[in-house]
Amino acid sequence: MNYDEIIKNVLDEKRYVHTKGVVNTAIQLSDKYGSSKEKALIAAYLHDYAKPLKYDESLKLIEEFGIILDDETLENPELLHAPLGMAFAKYKFGINDEEILDAIRYHTTGKENMALLTKIIYLADLIEPNRNFDGVDRIRKVAFKDLDQALIISMNNTIVYLIQKNSIIHSDTYKARNYIIRNWNRGN
Amino acid sequence: MNYDEIIKNVLDEKRYVHTKGVVNTAIQLSDKYGSSKEKALIAAYLHDYAKPLKYDESLKLIEEFGIILDDETLENPELLHAPLGMAFAKYKFGINDEEILDAIRYHTTGKENMALLTKIIYLADLIEPNRNFDGVDRIRKVAFKDLDQALIISMNNTIVYLIQKNSIIHSDTYKARNYIIRNWNRGN
Repeated sequence: MNYDEIIKNVLDEKRYVHTKGVVNTAIQLSDKYGSSKEKALIAAYLHDYAKPLKYDESLKLIEEFGIILDDETLENPELLHAPLGMAFAKYKFGINDEEILDAIRYHTTGKENMALLTKIIYLADLIEPNRNFDGVDRIRKVAFKDLDQALIISMNNTIVYLIQKNSIIHSDTYKARNYIIRNWNRGN
Repeated sequence: MNYDEIIKNVLDEKRYVHTKGVVNTAIQLSDKYGSSKEKALIAAYLHDYAKPLKYDESLKLIEEFGIILDDETLENPELLHAPLGMAFAKYKFGINDEEILDAIRYHTTGKENMALLTKIIYLADLIEPNRNFDGVDRIRKVAFKDLDQALIISMNNTIVYLIQKNSIIHSDTYKARNYIIRNWNRGN
């Protein structure tokens, strides 16, 4: 399947350029950590497939796809595109690989005990070359030395950002962070 | 029961002075929000009863009392005194009031959908006059205007503090915060 063509037709210029960045970064990280580059490519191309959809459209499609979501996700328009992207990958593009589907599903919140591919897509989404936020260069460097440490820094940033906005912090993000910290502390 | 005497015999000077501060602040908050001052007094006096115990003693007593705790609590020496304090209140001092027991049990982490007394003890512990940290004056002021807003600010502070230390954030804390933010946003 020509994912580049598919994505080009769905995303605006900015999101298309971002997605290409995620694809390249995800492949580099897969190379570094011995994960499948083919899976990384597909997950990266499709991770934001559902992003252009409006909130009410997304809610309707989630119902049509029969996806069961927690309230923390349903109430947050910025999170819906991840589970919805997974549904498109599965039902529109026939992807049945659970690692790819999981990586798309949790690329925004993370989750407890993430698989390597899920970690790679989560990080690639944050550090691809077009991203520009305070501290991104440090995460870029750490990502190619210690994937879990880069995830901890990224999740710390995300949680502090959400706190500054007085926003809900998705429980998957806390669980992801606690799980990694607990295991990272033990391994270091 | 003379809780003042009991506490004086168990806590060192600094913790005793802190506890008296929590008692006074909890009574003031109870007065302001129409909660029972008697319950606030007992919960405040006993909230740190188990704090002087060492980690291994605490673990042993938790087993003896038959308290079932999650790993996030068991692995964190700073959290054990809260459930253990609840056990002392119940089995040593014969307190069966669930509100008082809950307020002691969750005074460190908070919990989802806290009762008024639990909120009061949680906050009184943080803002009593001997406490001195950046932003405490603001929380003191807000606490007597909008209890939930004061809780959100306090939990935000706690979470950012734990992030700076790269520590685990107890799931009860984020559940407490998410629950209050969700309901506070709806009410304002």
